[in-house]
Formats: sequence, C-alpha cells, structure tokens
Amino acid sequence: MAGLDEIAGTGRDAHRGGYSRHLWQAADLELRAWFIERAERIGLAVETDRNGNIWAWWGEPGADAVVTGSHLDSVPGGGAFDGPLGVVSSLDAIARLQASGFVPSRACAILVFAEEEGSRFGIACLGSRLMTGALHADRARALVDPDGITLADAAAHAGLDPASLGTDRQSLERIGLFVELHVEQGRGLIDLGEPVAVASSILAHGRWRLTVTGQGNHAGATLMADRRDPMVAAARAVLAVQDTAAARPGTRATVGRMNIVPGGTNVIPSSVQAWLDARAETDEETRALLGEITAAVEAVVAENGCSVSVVEESWADAVHFDPELRDRFSAVLGDVPSLATGAGHDSGVLAASVPSAMLFVRNPTGISHSPEEFASADDCVAGVEALEKLLRTLL
Amino acid sequence: MAGLDEIAGTGRDAHRGGYSRHLWQAADLELRAWFIERAERIGLAVETDRNGNIWAWWGEPGADAVVTGSHLDSVPGGGAFDGPLGVVSSLDAIARLQASGFVPSRACAILVFAEEEGSRFGIACLGSRLMTGALHADRARALVDPDGITLADAAAHAGLDPASLGTDRQSLERIGLFVELHVEQGRGLIDLGEPVAVASSILAHGRWRLTVTGQGNHAGATLMADRRDPMVAAARAVLAVQDTAAARPGTRATVGRMNIVPGGTNVIPSSVQAWLDARAETDEETRALLGEITAAVEAVVAENGCSVSVVEESWADAVHFDPELRDRFSAVLGDVPSLATGAGHDSGVLAASVPSAMLFVRNPTGISHSPEEFASADDCVAGVEALEKLLRTLL
Repeated sequence: MAGLDEIAGTGRDAHRGGYSRHLWQAADLELRAWFIERAERIGLAVETDRNGNIWAWWGEPGADAVVTGSHLDSVPGGGAFDGPLGVVSSLDAIARLQASGFVPSRACAILVFAEEEGSRFGIACLGSRLMTGALHADRARALVDPDGITLADAAAHAGLDPASLGTDRQSLERIGLFVELHVEQGRGLIDLGEPVAVASSILAHGRWRLTVTGQGNHAGATLMADRRDPMVAAARAVLAVQDTAAARPGTRATVGRMNIVPGGTNVIPSSVQAWLDARAETDEETRALLGEITAAVEAVVAENGCSVSVVEESWADAVHFDPELRDRFSAVLGDVPSLATGAGHDSGVLAASVPSAMLFVRNPTGISHSPEEFASADDCVAGVEALEKLLRTLL
Repeated sequence: MAGLDEIAGTGRDAHRGGYSRHLWQAADLELRAWFIERAERIGLAVETDRNGNIWAWWGEPGADAVVTGSHLDSVPGGGAFDGPLGVVSSLDAIARLQASGFVPSRACAILVFAEEEGSRFGIACLGSRLMTGALHADRARALVDPDGITLADAAAHAGLDPASLGTDRQSLERIGLFVELHVEQGRGLIDLGEPVAVASSILAHGRWRLTVTGQGNHAGATLMADRRDPMVAAARAVLAVQDTAAARPGTRATVGRMNIVPGGTNVIPSSVQAWLDARAETDEETRALLGEITAAVEAVVAENGCSVSVVEESWADAVHFDPELRDRFSAVLGDVPSLATGAGHDSGVLAASVPSAMLFVRNPTGISHSPEEFASADDCVAGVEALEKLLRTLL
C-alpha cells in the first residue's frame, strides 16, 4: 500500500527489529506530521483534540458523524500493520469515494488515537480512555515514562495544554458510530480462508506491576544458601503465571517486560519488577485468573524469602461490539465471518459510549506485535474495499 | 573517613539507590579528578597509563616498587566502600608515614585501576587485564557499552589513544609487589570478630551471555498452547542455574541482569538475554559447573520450544595469593586471620604476574554490591593502620 510504503522508513528499531514508534517521540511526531499532510492533500480539515488525538474531517465537522481510524504508535519492535493499516485504509477508502464522485450526506472523519499501545506511559488506549473518561486526567498527568518524564510534561512539550487533558464530551458526542480496520492478531482468517472479518468481541484484560523484593548482594561472595534472590523468585513467578493461565482454558497471561534492580552481572538483585498482562473472555474470569495468579506468585516467591506486591496499572472490561451494527455490516459485506479477539483496541474503549465496530484483515503469519506481522497487498485492498462499501452505506 | 566523605555525593543513583560510577562517565571522571587532586596535595606525582589506570608516585617512579591501591568505579547501585575504601586508605597510609617523618628506601605508588566492576563494558578488572595482557587489546577496543559506544571511542573521548591500549610491560615491570585493601564482601570477619584479615585465595569465576530465542507474538491474541515464549524458557533457565549451583557445594551461580527483546507489556518476547555469573574454588570445578548448567538450560528451554546459545564474556582462573608475602604480612600484623573470597579483584589478575596480596576490612552487614555495604569508622582506621605497618616494613 502506498501509504504504508511512505512511512516504511519511520521509527525503525535497529536493535529490536521492526518499529518503535512511541507517543510524541521523534518517530511518532513524524508520523503525525505525515498523516496531517496526507489528509490535507485529499481535502480533509485536520484538528488535534485536547488529548492529542488527531481528527481529519471530510466536509463540515458535525454531530452524529461516521468516524473511522486507528493509531500510528507501535509496541517496541512492532510490525508495520498494527495501527497504520487502519489509518492508511481510512485515507484510501475516502479517496476512493471522492474519486467516484460520492457526496456524503453525513459528517465523516478519520480519527487517529494517541498511544494505543501504552508503550511510553504504560496504559493502552490512552487517547480513547482520556476522551471517554475511562482514565482520569489527574492519573494520566502523573504517568511517568521510562526516562522519568511525566505525561503532563510530555504533553506540554508536544504543544498540548496539560490542564486540558481529560474527558472530552464535545469530541465524543460528535461520534455517531466508530469503525476501526485492523490487521488480525491471530490465526482466525487463516483458518477460515477469508481476507476480511468483522469483530464480535474483545477479551477483558488488564496490566499489573509485580514487584518482587529480596536482598541485593555480591554474586561471588554470597553462598547459595544465604540468598534471598528476587530474580530466582521472579522466575518462579513467571512460571506460576504461565501454569495458572494454561490450566484455565481460553485465558492468557504473559510477562513480557521486567526491570531488574540494580541489574549488574555480578550482583544479586535487590528487587525485580515484572509486568503481567492477563486476559479472559469475561471480566469475572479475568479477575479470577488474576486472583489465582496472585496467590500462586505470593506462595512461590516466599520459597526464596522474598515478598511481592501487585499493583494494577490498567483494566479494560470485556467488549461485545454493537450487534445491530454488526448485522448492518453483514448485510452490506455479504457473508463475512465474525471473530472474537484477545487484543485490546480504541474501538473497544469507545464501545462503552458509542456504537463501535471493527474490520479485521488477514495476517498470514498469525503473528503480531513482532516484525513478522504481515498482510498481503491483495488482502489490504480487500480491507479498503470493505471499508469503502461500509462508508458508502453509512454516509 | 574524610576521603570517603569528600566523594559521598558523587555518582549517587536516585533510581537504584547507592552509587553508579561507571568508567569514563561523569561520576567516574569526577572521582578521577578528585583522586589526582588529593594525591598531588600530599606531594605524589600523578600519571595515567596507556590503559587509563592512574598511578600516584611517592618519590621517584622506579622498578621493584611497592604498589597499593584499588578502584573507584562501582557496580550499578553499588555501595560506598567497594573500591574507594582501598584508594582512600592508600592515601591515608602514605600521609601517616609522611607525617611520622618516614623516608621510603624503595619506590612506592598508589594505583587506581580502570573499570574493575565491568559495569560499562562487561569485563571485570578491565584495567589490570589490559595491563597484563589477560585481555587482548583488539577484543577490548571492540567492546560495546549499553548505549552502543565502543570502548575504543570511549577511550578516545577520555583522552587516551585507543591504538595504545593493551599489554603494558613497562608499567607491570615496575610493580615489585601489589597490596589491595578492600572491604570484605562476606561474613568472614563478622564470624571471627576481627576487624582485618589477609586474603588467601579468590574463586575461579566467569561471565556468560545466554540468549534464549523463541517466537515474539501478541500477548492477548496468542493462545497459551501456541506459544514459544522465551521469557518462560528464561525463567526455567534461571531456576536451572540456581538448582545446579545449590547442588554443588561451594559453587555460586547468579543471573543478575537480563535484556528482554522487545520488552513490551503486551508482547510475548522474541528473545531474552540473561547474563550468568558462575564461580567455584578451582578452574575445573567452575568449568564443570558451567557444563552442567549449560546442559540443564538447554534441556529446560526446549520444553517451551525455545533454543539457547551460551557465549563466554570473561574468565578468571582461581587465584592463590603469594604464600611468602602472606607469611611476611602475618609476621608484621600479628595473628590476623586469612580468608578466601568469592569476589574477583585486580590484585587477583596481577597475582599471575607479580607477588600480590590483599587486606580485608570487616563489613558488619556482610552485604556488598548494594547500598547496604558498610564498614565502621574504627574498622576503617584499623585497615589504614595495618596498611601503614605493611608499607613501613616493605619500604
């Protein structure tokens, strides 16, 4: 896709592979400028809202708008499609409608959300959570990135007023319905042999910070029997996370990030922070999974004379996308499959406030949040065509 | 101690606690400037050798010198005594000899070694290994710090000629014998109820980088059964390291540092690097420990469909300090105890080339490589007095 080719050089991560595009850092700012220029080139009027989300209006901004879009930021070392595919497809779908002479009878916008992945400040879907009030502005302002910069300072540096962050009813009330096109992050469409699906639901999910505390000491001078090593305790915790989720069908739990303090080769650490990502079909099941993991982790770290604290960093209820909207989509698109997903999305956050829906485009590797994430050119076109058809009907 | 008080504010680590003083970075440069000023104040003549080690001569530089000293760099988040205590005690012992009117009949110098902890470039005792040729200059120049800076570039930036790094026979041949005073990094002197000991031996030890490779993927969209998660495999590896060392009496093995790639909360990593520190009384026993650990790690990571590579980053033979020198010390100091240690030291590297010895000062916490490392003012004075006595006899 031309749009993806244009940004293929932006935010490459030489160390991890793939892309690292994090909120308001150089690559993200470059992508934002690129989007604004691209949207203005097809006559859209661009504005940035109080939370850093970018709106590009086709025609007059107004109430009850049909809004489509996704995000431009990535996980560390992420793929090229997660986020940008939805943004580029939105631009392409509107350009196709314009080229066909279509005149919308309803307000329409592309919406690019800020920090969907939570890679800089730790909370996924930051822009949509702020807009809807799911995240309180005071809590957001106090978030700190790995370099110790607060979100308030980063927002000010990016030209926003930190005092204005937070619930944005004016923006939210303009959204009549929201459609997000996204690369699939699983193997559903591979198994079905189809290029495009609509989303049925998103798992409940949350993030927790586990801090395992032991006794720092010298790696050479401390006998094995005298240790209270939080790295060994954290290793037991990782296995407890894995085993607990594996024993509860359908649930998922992951430790993908750690901070070992102090982190020297010849030093028994004094503490280890490990981040837990846990998900299940319902809110209750996810809470039960967390409860079981917490109990298991507390028990295993004690075997090494360590203690652990568990702090919730974010939470998202299970989402069931608007069934009425899904029926309308099926009528327009014909017999497209309907898929549940384990991945969170801004459309899932919006679903609590406005009718929302998603389109998935097949990912032939089944792999996401990795440079191996992919979508073929033909499938990308199929996604744009589906989005164009929907907009033609909705507008 | 006055000297330690003077540098108490340099290189404090607000995040980890304690001190982070790494080769040629701001805190280390400040300490080097402080040492030069301090040595010149008592009339010593300072020179920096081709490998960045600092020499401060009392009287004429010359052959067969009595050399004493230690290092100023620290582990990340280290204590105030590991390294600086030996440097400050050397300054104080010479100042006491001067104040008493003592005139040395033999050349004498304080030697401050560069990068003893290996915290910036990964190889402990860098300065002494370069001097003795235990580390080849080509290998050293190519070492890379966590910011991607080569040792060659860092050396040039610090005012050294990278082409001149390496074996320094001229410096080495000047050392008639070397004495390093150091805070004890264990509980030996606590148990004995003594303030000072001489060292008998150092365990053989080495560092290895374990790279566990799996399949990066989305933390929410990937079923537990479909994963090849290198974090889970690395956790099994950490437990294998712990269990293997615990089962072999006297051996020690530690994982104190990891690099998780890419390191996102909602991302199953694609690979995990874990650094292994392993030690035992003899070289053979340490090699046997490593062999058993490697086999165990290979077996456990395979359980998660992952693979592992093991690369040696550094190696140090077991050291038995010069028994003749130890006997002379006992004659001068009276009935001081003799202790083995699991911690590596520049004196251990030098021991292969010149007669070397160590003095340990009691550490009432028994903890080292941590802000909790300590030595009382009285014990520090006892250390200086012991060193002064030795120098008086040797000079």
